[in-house]
Amino acid sequence: MGRALAGALLDSGLPTTVWNRTPGRDRELVERGAVGAGSVAEAVAAGEVVVVCVVNYDAVDAVLRQDDVATALKGRTVVNLTADTPARARDTADWAAAHGVRYLDGAIMTPTTTIGTPDAVFLHSGPADLYEEVAPVRQALGGTHTHLGEDTGRAAAYDIALLDIFWTAIAGFAHALAVARAEGVTAGELAPFAQGIGAILPPVFAEAAADADAGTYSGEGNPLTSAVSSMAHIVHVSESHGIDAGVMRAAEGMARRAIGLGHGTDGFIRIAEVIGRE
Amino acid sequence: MGRALAGALLDSGLPTTVWNRTPGRDRELVERGAVGAGSVAEAVAAGEVVVVCVVNYDAVDAVLRQDDVATALKGRTVVNLTADTPARARDTADWAAAHGVRYLDGAIMTPTTTIGTPDAVFLHSGPADLYEEVAPVRQALGGTHTHLGEDTGRAAAYDIALLDIFWTAIAGFAHALAVARAEGVTAGELAPFAQGIGAILPPVFAEAAADADAGTYSGEGNPLTSAVSSMAHIVHVSESHGIDAGVMRAAEGMARRAIGLGHGTDGFIRIAEVIGRE
Repeated sequence: MGRALAGALLDSGLPTTVWNRTPGRDRELVERGAVGAGSVAEAVAAGEVVVVCVVNYDAVDAVLRQDDVATALKGRTVVNLTADTPARARDTADWAAAHGVRYLDGAIMTPTTTIGTPDAVFLHSGPADLYEEVAPVRQALGGTHTHLGEDTGRAAAYDIALLDIFWTAIAGFAHALAVARAEGVTAGELAPFAQGIGAILPPVFAEAAADADAGTYSGEGNPLTSAVSSMAHIVHVSESHGIDAGVMRAAEGMARRAIGLGHGTDGFIRIAEVIGRE
Repeated sequence: MGRALAGALLDSGLPTTVWNRTPGRDRELVERGAVGAGSVAEAVAAGEVVVVCVVNYDAVDAVLRQDDVATALKGRTVVNLTADTPARARDTADWAAAHGVRYLDGAIMTPTTTIGTPDAVFLHSGPADLYEEVAPVRQALGGTHTHLGEDTGRAAAYDIALLDIFWTAIAGFAHALAVARAEGVTAGELAPFAQGIGAILPPVFAEAAADADAGTYSGEGNPLTSAVSSMAHIVHVSESHGIDAGVMRAAEGMARRAIGLGHGTDGFIRIAEVIGRE
C-alpha cells in the first residue's frame, strides 16, 4: 500500500521522498523519481507533509516515536493512513500534540490497485484546517476523500464498523458455500443467487439505519421471531453435515437475547440497540 | 405469504380454493372470488394443483399427513413453497411418492409484497415434468422461477445457503452499528458507507466462487493473515465497549483454523473448504 501511495504522489508530480523498513524495497520508486531516504528522520525532514502507512499502530509507534524523528517532525504534518483502532488513533494524536506535530488520521477503504484512480475511497478525521491544507496530497492520491470530523478516532471508527460488515458478510458467504457443497451445490451454481442476495443488502442497510436512528426498529414483514426460525434451520443443516455453525449460532444468540428482552416483533436491527447497551 | 400467493392466483383469473388453519382468515380472499373450503380434504379435492405455504414442515405434516387428506391428494400435484431443511423436503417427497401424490418442492426468496410482481424470486426442485406442468400456476405467481434439478432437496439447500449469507450479513450490519454508535457515529452517518460495502459484495462473491470451484483459493492482495488482523481489531474495539463480539470471534476462529492448517497466504474463501471437510 505504501508503494501505491508513493507511486500516486510521484505520478501527480509531487516531489516525494520515501523510506521503508526493509532496505532496497524503495528501488522501484527511486527509479520512478522518488528520493530514497537513509533514515526515518531524513525522510520526514524532506517535506512538509509526511504520509504514513504501515501494518498497524505498533509499527507506527516504532517508526515515529524516536527522539530524532520527533525532533524532525516538529511543525510538520503527519497524515497517518495506517489501519487500527480509534483509541490508538487518538493516542497517536495526543503524542503528536505533545511533540508539536500536526496530525491528521485516515483510513483507506479500497485495495492498493485503486490508489491514484477514481475508485479509491479515503476517510479522514482530525483538524479541519489540516484536512484542507493537505488537499494537494489528497488529490494526488485520487478517488474520494471524506472528512468525518475533528475527533481523531472517527476515521478508524468508520473503518472498524465497515470492515465488521465486510468480513462478517464474507464469513457468511464462505459458510454458505460449505453448506451448499455438502448439499451437492457448486460455488458456480450458488454464485448468481448469492450475488442477488448481495444486491439487496444496500437498500436493507439504508432502511435498517433509518429505523435505528428513528428508534422504531420496525419488524413489519420480518420480525425477529421469524428470523430466528431461519437461523435455527441454517444451524441445523450446517451441523447435520458436520460443518461449524459458530457464526450463525452467535448471531442467533443475539437475536434470541433481543426476543427474550421483549423485542420479538421488532426487526433485526433492534439487536444493535440491545448489544450496544452498557 | 399464503394470502399473497392465493391473491396472485385470483388476480390472474385461476379458479382458487383456499383453506387456513384459523377460521375467518380466508374472508378477504373469499370476497375477492376465492372459494373458502371447510377442511383441508375439501380444499385439496377442489383442484389439480395444491399450493402449500405454512411456517415449516412440522406444519406441513400436520396439514397433509392425515388419512382423508392423503386420499384426496392421490393423483394430484403438491407445490410446497414452505421453507425448511433439504432433508425435510426429501422426506416429504418420499411420503408423497408412497401415497401416489405428485410432489414439487420450492422456496420463495423475496418478501410477500413481491408476490405477483416481476420482483418475486422462486426456486423449485423435483421432477422436471411437474415443473413444466405447473407453468400456469408459476406464471400467475409472477417473478422469476428457476428449476434447480430433480433432487427435491435442492430448492431448500439453495434457500438455506442464501439465507445464511443474508442473515450473517445483517447480523454484521447490526453489530457494526452498535460499535459505530459506541464511537459516537450515528446509523445515518454510517449508512452511505455501509451501502458502499454492500455494493462491492456481489463481485467479491462471484470472484470467490470462481476461486473455490477452481480450487485456487487465491489470496492475492488479501491473504487470510491480513484478514485476521482486521478481525482482531474489530473484536478488540467491540469488546472494549462491552459489546458482544461472538459473531466476529467465530469468524476469526475459522480464519485462524485455516491459517493453522497452512493456508495463511490463501484468500478467505479457503475457509469454505476447511470447514466443509468431513
